Amino acid sequence: MPAALKYKTIGLFSRPRPTALAEVVPHLLKWLKDRGVTPLYDSETACAVEPCERNSLERSEIARQADMLLVLGGDGTILAATREAAPRGIPILPINLGGLGFLTSFTLEELYPAIEDVLAGRETVSERVLLCVERIHHNGQRLAVQSVLNEAVVHKGSLARMIELELHIDSAFVCRYRSDGLIVATPTGSTAYSLSAAGPIVHPAVEAILITPICPHTLSDRPVVVPDNSKIELRFSEHTSEVVLTLDGQIGVQLEKGDRVSITRAAQRLKLIHPANKTYFEILRSKLKWGEA
Amino acid sequence: MPAALKYKTIGLFSRPRPTALAEVVPHLLKWLKDRGVTPLYDSETACAVEPCERNSLERSEIARQADMLLVLGGDGTILAATREAAPRGIPILPINLGGLGFLTSFTLEELYPAIEDVLAGRETVSERVLLCVERIHHNGQRLAVQSVLNEAVVHKGSLARMIELELHIDSAFVCRYRSDGLIVATPTGSTAYSLSAAGPIVHPAVEAILITPICPHTLSDRPVVVPDNSKIELRFSEHTSEVVLTLDGQIGVQLEKGDRVSITRAAQRLKLIHPANKTYFEILRSKLKWGEA
Amino acid sequence: MPAALKYKTIGLFSRPRPTALAEVVPHLLKWLKDRGVTPLYDSETACAVEPCERNSLERSEIARQADMLLVLGGDGTILAATREAAPRGIPILPINLGGLGFLTSFTLEELYPAIEDVLAGRETVSERVLLCVERIHHNGQRLAVQSVLNEAVVHKGSLARMIELELHIDSAFVCRYRSDGLIVATPTGSTAYSLSAAGPIVHPAVEAILITPICPHTLSDRPVVVPDNSKIELRFSEHTSEVVLTLDGQIGVQLEKGDRVSITRAAQRLKLIHPANKTYFEILRSKLKWGEA
Amino acid sequence: MPAALKYKTIGLFSRPRPTALAEVVPHLLKWLKDRGVTPLYDSETACAVEPCERNSLERSEIARQADMLLVLGGDGTILAATREAAPRGIPILPINLGGLGFLTSFTLEELYPAIEDVLAGRETVSERVLLCVERIHHNGQRLAVQSVLNEAVVHKGSLARMIELELHIDSAFVCRYRSDGLIVATPTGSTAYSLSAAGPIVHPAVEAILITPICPHTLSDRPVVVPDNSKIELRFSEHTSEVVLTLDGQIGVQLEKGDRVSITRAAQRLKLIHPANKTYFEILRSKLKWGEA
Repeated sequence: MPAALKYKTIGLFSRPRPTALAEVVPHLLKWLKDRGVTPLYDSETACAVEPCERNSLERSEIARQADMLLVLGGDGTILAATREAAPRGIPILPINLGGLGFLTSFTLEELYPAIEDVLAGRETVSERVLLCVERIHHNGQRLAVQSVLNEAVVHKGSLARMIELELHIDSAFVCRYRSDGLIVATPTGSTAYSLSAAGPIVHPAVEAILITPICPHTLSDRPVVVPDNSKIELRFSEHTSEVVLTLDGQIGVQLEKGDRVSITRAAQRLKLIHPANKTYFEILRSKLKWGEA
Repeated sequence: MPAALKYKTIGLFSRPRPTALAEVVPHLLKWLKDRGVTPLYDSETACAVEPCERNSLERSEIARQADMLLVLGGDGTILAATREAAPRGIPILPINLGGLGFLTSFTLEELYPAIEDVLAGRETVSERVLLCVERIHHNGQRLAVQSVLNEAVVHKGSLARMIELELHIDSAFVCRYRSDGLIVATPTGSTAYSLSAAGPIVHPAVEAILITPICPHTLSDRPVVVPDNSKIELRFSEHTSEVVLTLDGQIGVQLEKGDRVSITRAAQRLKLIHPANKTYFEILRSKLKWGEA
Repeated sequence: MPAALKYKTIGLFSRPRPTALAEVVPHLLKWLKDRGVTPLYDSETACAVEPCERNSLERSEIARQADMLLVLGGDGTILAATREAAPRGIPILPINLGGLGFLTSFTLEELYPAIEDVLAGRETVSERVLLCVERIHHNGQRLAVQSVLNEAVVHKGSLARMIELELHIDSAFVCRYRSDGLIVATPTGSTAYSLSAAGPIVHPAVEAILITPICPHTLSDRPVVVPDNSKIELRFSEHTSEVVLTLDGQIGVQLEKGDRVSITRAAQRLKLIHPANKTYFEILRSKLKWGEA
Repeated sequence: MPAALKYKTIGLFSRPRPTALAEVVPHLLKWLKDRGVTPLYDSETACAVEPCERNSLERSEIARQADMLLVLGGDGTILAATREAAPRGIPILPINLGGLGFLTSFTLEELYPAIEDVLAGRETVSERVLLCVERIHHNGQRLAVQSVLNEAVVHKGSLARMIELELHIDSAFVCRYRSDGLIVATPTGSTAYSLSAAGPIVHPAVEAILITPICPHTLSDRPVVVPDNSKIELRFSEHTSEVVLTLDGQIGVQLEKGDRVSITRAAQRLKLIHPANKTYFEILRSKLKWGEA
């Protein structure tokens, strides 16, 4: 008699139309069923099985039923899957369909060994902090509560010259920024957009939030790393006409005059399965081409 | 008999509604007339004289008739005045109404001594290179030829993730950028937006164009300084959905798919009058607070 | 009957020959004695009382006897005092004799109110992590164990071209640096040398160690922030001829070929007394001139 | 009858002991003699021919007699050869024995085609500006006049905390630096040490000198690009105890208290032969791995 499976229902999320998908998904579904696992899949995954999309489910519905999500795609697909997985506390197994990603650390070759480890309860899990981002409407109402794995960004509109904002931490004024924008990132997000804006690399085990200005006018403005139990609030000056709030580079919200943005550590963390034999720094070295020149 | 005046007709451009204007303009107009100078003024300047705007002219009309422009405002007002002055080859005398600017280097206290020097032909002039920016429509048509004193910027739209562009110089491929945008600046513009994006300070006498990426994804992308007779062309990849071209932070153009941007040194330079006793580096020291800490 | 004093013996450390010292020390000694406190002082402090140095003690002896150290000087004086105070677990009350410092946050005007608060047990204490730095001799022997409040730096010798070193964390290889040097800093040290080398500002409450390369040849090398329970080891390549290890910018050691450097969080923390009404960010704003331009 | 050779005497400089040398040099010498060229070689080159060093000459003697230098090595070998070639106005043909260099742009495979082009007068030459560096002794004497192809660096000694210096340009005070050091570089040197210190890339055709601070304490200190006819002078403050002047990373001079350093464009330029089909930006792309990620 086989050992009990750790995960009985596995949801599959895929990136739309990667060429490899048609070669991977049909066999994967059969492989899972052969082992007694019930696979659930979204419409993108379904497209790789004929006839198209018949048995697919909404991603939110999959997340409700599944014990785990298997994501076939790139880092962007993980960011989207995180919004479904994190609130329900189910882990994500990320399989990369392109080049190595910071989040999608398993290659396609490692797919079946990885699932076998997972089903046998031998997976290695990295718990990643999420940020809870709230837009506080100028009338005081709290809107658009959303959690992000990488970062929340406030940025000037396309035609604006800059934004002027005040950073408050734990209700105390910290400083005023005149800049293109400001990035508030998790350690996970420190290797994403924040890195392009000259932010440091922060190991995921550091309990910190990273605040990185984008093209600051004050030349002494520098990235700031604060404890992750800080309550961060961004307030915009009267002169700031147009501010866009972007969540994980995927969701954009145009703020109204007088709106504020509140950012705190989310209650739930993401359980991200990663290869036991690949360290954080190995992936970094590979992505950043360290030590090659 | 008085010596011949170097400038017989002087145009006045002002920044809208600075508090000091009403105290300065009426006396200035009288002072100029007393010396035989014909003053022409725009509607913003007219607002400081009663009754409002009666004798004001369009800025373009003033530039056609005047021998010189006297600009009361900040660096932004100079950027706007440059678009009128440079094509006609007339100099600008910049008077700052706020704090010291990089371009507006005369203070209000220096107003009358400065005009006296100018009328007597004793002014010190810094010739500033302008860039000629052309949008090349995807059908091959050349549109929106415009000259800039500081910089041309191509930037991703508010909700886009990045732009992907190719830089070509003198028809040869230089490199590919994946970034928030790219700044192509004159030495004059090196202390404006480019400085916020970590560009170097380039002395106005250096015959160079400065190319500074904004939040580049490739960490080895660095500001590049090329000779100012370079023909620069920016081409956008298929994946780039939304690009905004901004000229001197004042004019914004939404590019269409397939559009290119061509940038060369303009034939005309700006003649910027500046105080004989204030060096470029003195203004820099003061603006950047060098040597204070 | 007066309340029991929290600190009965207070050691005084001073910066050599600051002009203000002679006006401050005699009255301070009397004031302390009047309140029943026994003051002990080093030779620099003694110089401010006639006849010179008669009753002064070695700093290490003062630290052995005192319940607290009162330091008159700048940040450099605090760094030196930390090496005496931290191992004995006694707090430091820092009084600035010059401009505001990152560490010396009390002004001279605040001296007596600060001591009164301290004697009454009303002081606010910030516990600062120290790093324990060990030189591991090429023969395996552990030498020069020392704790630092700001940072340990390894740097090329004056005439060398660069050093080549390997960073290992928790016995795993992280990356190879070819650079002028490497800074391993506490959050406290993030506003010192590391900031000049483009490191981020890390709030003292973040449990992290900051690793900042100095002039790295690999352009994608970036400051890295790791958990403060990391065991950091620096190993130097064969090609590296001359390496100097500097501790808090005050103690320099020439390493020998084959030596390694091990850095971990020290067991003891520094108890740094600071003004209850001045936040970390207020001092930062003031020192970095944030928000002025 | 063959056409007249453009260069009748060619000097060979080699990097000490590269493994490839023994395979290249004997055939190269024969090949040159067969074409009627007289080869002269230094002791490093001679080591690749038996018996060792018999016919070798001092490098300075070779430079006096030769019409051209052929350099087998890396960028460091070119820097050394430049000090001999530039004063005599003879060109350098650089052949790389390792990976591609910024200066050594011919590969070993391109050796013979390159010499054939050179002998036939078809070579492409890039004229590179050199800087003339003078140490002005505190007694007023001018010492150590030397020209550099990449940069002159003033740097704190190993154990010093920083240097404090004043930059003067054309006898006017520019600013005061408190830093680890200062790099004064040619455009050629902009891709060497200055790039590690966050300096911009300056195309060799830009007539400019680049001034890049190393770890400046003032956070608004930025690299500055000035016209290459500027007379640059560095003066050190009283507090600066130990300054080392380094020329092209190869020659180090310990300055004495009160010494100054004067830097101007050298009268002679270096004639650097480079492949007609490899542009400056191609080499840059390859060295900096642009566009790979």
